[in-house]
Amino acid sequence: MSEVRTIEINESVFATNEKEADAIRSMLSDRGIFFVNVMSSPGSGKTTFLTALINMLKNEIKIAEMDVDIKSDLDAKKVADATGVRCLQIHNGGLCHIDADMTSRAIAQFGVDDVELLILENIGNLVCPAEFDTGAHKNIMLFSIPEGDDKPLKYPLMYEVSDVVIITKLDTKEFFDFDMDLAKEHIRELNPNAIIFEVSAKTGEGMEEVADYFRAHINR
Amino acid sequence: MSEVRTIEINESVFATNEKEADAIRSMLSDRGIFFVNVMSSPGSGKTTFLTALINMLKNEIKIAEMDVDIKSDLDAKKVADATGVRCLQIHNGGLCHIDADMTSRAIAQFGVDDVELLILENIGNLVCPAEFDTGAHKNIMLFSIPEGDDKPLKYPLMYEVSDVVIITKLDTKEFFDFDMDLAKEHIRELNPNAIIFEVSAKTGEGMEEVADYFRAHINR
Repeated sequence: MSEVRTIEINESVFATNEKEADAIRSMLSDRGIFFVNVMSSPGSGKTTFLTALINMLKNEIKIAEMDVDIKSDLDAKKVADATGVRCLQIHNGGLCHIDADMTSRAIAQFGVDDVELLILENIGNLVCPAEFDTGAHKNIMLFSIPEGDDKPLKYPLMYEVSDVVIITKLDTKEFFDFDMDLAKEHIRELNPNAIIFEVSAKTGEGMEEVADYFRAHINR
Repeated sequence: MSEVRTIEINESVFATNEKEADAIRSMLSDRGIFFVNVMSSPGSGKTTFLTALINMLKNEIKIAEMDVDIKSDLDAKKVADATGVRCLQIHNGGLCHIDADMTSRAIAQFGVDDVELLILENIGNLVCPAEFDTGAHKNIMLFSIPEGDDKPLKYPLMYEVSDVVIITKLDTKEFFDFDMDLAKEHIRELNPNAIIFEVSAKTGEGMEEVADYFRAHINR
């Protein structure tokens, strides 16, 4: 088992989230670090997806992950054990989201020396995290096939703020009544610029395209 | 297509949520109405489950449903079309939850004359709705197999406040690495009194036991 540090970060008292987020982005850009905020519904496969992705990239890119959870340390431990990369567990005091100030304090405690790709695995929630800019360069959301093709219509803001939408659990497609074209149409109506990937982290299908997206964003 | 009314209910200004919730419970008890608050992660099958359940019970019990969504009218329309029971769509102004005052205003506008079972389909979110007593007699949560057996550990409050946990999408069990005994152990650690059902709304498996639970709570 890897040793994973856990820190407690409670809600920010600042109302200036956008300003704080911009400061994080600019600080990380200056240091050549690509920072992504990964959001989704609970159980859509964030941890499995990130584990697979990190294992594909870790020999070429220096990666670190911060994992937000209400209480457990499950995800950070899982990712650290399965990939060997440095992970931080953030406990956010029972909140439904993480904001820029919380992210900033987590980054300060975690330390990002010798990091090229910094991943924030946000709390599983399609509503609240969409409202808070964390300072990430890109918002990435996962949308799993078992959730149903109508979900973009029900949680529109999350789809509007996401630069990348990754449709996950592609290996289960035949077991669910999921219309891929309709799902993509819903995503594009809300966010015409969203980059859409279809993957199965389990079989590896579609993962190479996602890995290429990350490779293209690393400054060398 | 059934006609479904939609109302806009914005956040309560009252800090007295518990008091308001008790008032709703007592008002509905006096009128012989059993009120349940159905919560879950997005895409765990609330609408499909409730449609199946209502169709099993509607000839014996007078049912009405209120459906909370950020924006769309999909769920209320789906349930109304598939069951013929009276449904109300509640738009909650983009919030991540519904509180007792919002519920009270929705009930006042909806009207509950000639209702024996009042169902609130809450917004898909495992964090925020758990924090707000809506005045329901019972909190019922759905936990779908594709989400993974570790979810109780990650969203503990939702499991602690739920009187009934319904494990859904049982027909997909063989396609996922889901340990049913472990899932139940996690639920019981958080909430030893929770009643647990296992169902597939698609095949009907386990649904009769759930219907019996509702029958037993209707006052005659």
